[in-house]
Amino acid sequence: MSLFFPNPDECARHTIFPGVHIRTCAAEKMMISVVDLEPNAVVEEHSHPHEQVGMVLSGRAVFTIGGEQKELRAGDTYRIPGGVKHRVVALDEPARAIDIFCPVREDYL
Amino acid sequence: MSLFFPNPDECARHTIFPGVHIRTCAAEKMMISVVDLEPNAVVEEHSHPHEQVGMVLSGRAVFTIGGEQKELRAGDTYRIPGGVKHRVVALDEPARAIDIFCPVREDYL
Repeated sequence: MSLFFPNPDECARHTIFPGVHIRTCAAEKMMISVVDLEPNAVVEEHSHPHEQVGMVLSGRAVFTIGGEQKELRAGDTYRIPGGVKHRVVALDEPARAIDIFCPVREDYL
Repeated sequence: MSLFFPNPDECARHTIFPGVHIRTCAAEKMMISVVDLEPNAVVEEHSHPHEQVGMVLSGRAVFTIGGEQKELRAGDTYRIPGGVKHRVVALDEPARAIDIFCPVREDYL
C-alpha cells in the first residue's frame, strides 16, 4: 500500500453492527474509517476513549451524541469527544460517512 | 456552537492560497478543515509538523505528497505524515476536500 495514497482494496474491513460496514486505514496518530450504513441500520449506543470527528458523505442519519440529537446529511460534520456516548440510525436509504479517530483504534486494524 | 454538531456559519474561514478557501472547526486533538479549491487553484508545496489525513469530496485534484503524485477524485483518501512536503493542484473544475489535522492547527483557528 502507498504510504500516502491508501488503496481501498488494501484497507481492513469490518462489520461492526448489523448493516454497518467499515473500511479502515491507519496513519500514525489518526485512523480513517469509511462507514457504509444499510437503510435503517443502527450503530448502537457506545463510547470509546478515542476522540472521533467525521462528516456524512451521502444519505441521511440521525446522530445522538451526549444526549443531543440531530439529523445529518451530506456535508454535515460532527465531533465526539473521547468517552461520550453516541448512537447513529440511518434513515430509509443507504448512508455513508467518514470517521477519523485519534488515537488509532487498534480494534479496527 | 454545539460541542457535537458544529454549524458551518460558526467555523473559522481563511483563504490560505489564491482560490483556496477553508473553513475549520477544532476538536480537542484534531481539527476538521473543509477545503474549497477554485478551478486550477494551487496549494503550494509546504509542510507542517501536524499529521494530516483527508478525502476528496468532489471534483479532481493532483496531489503530490513526499514526491509521489496521484490524481484523486471524490472518495479518494490520502495520508500526509508530519513534516512531509505536499502540493495540490485542482483541475479545470472546482474541487472540495476534507482535511483532518492532529494536533489542532493553531494558525487555522
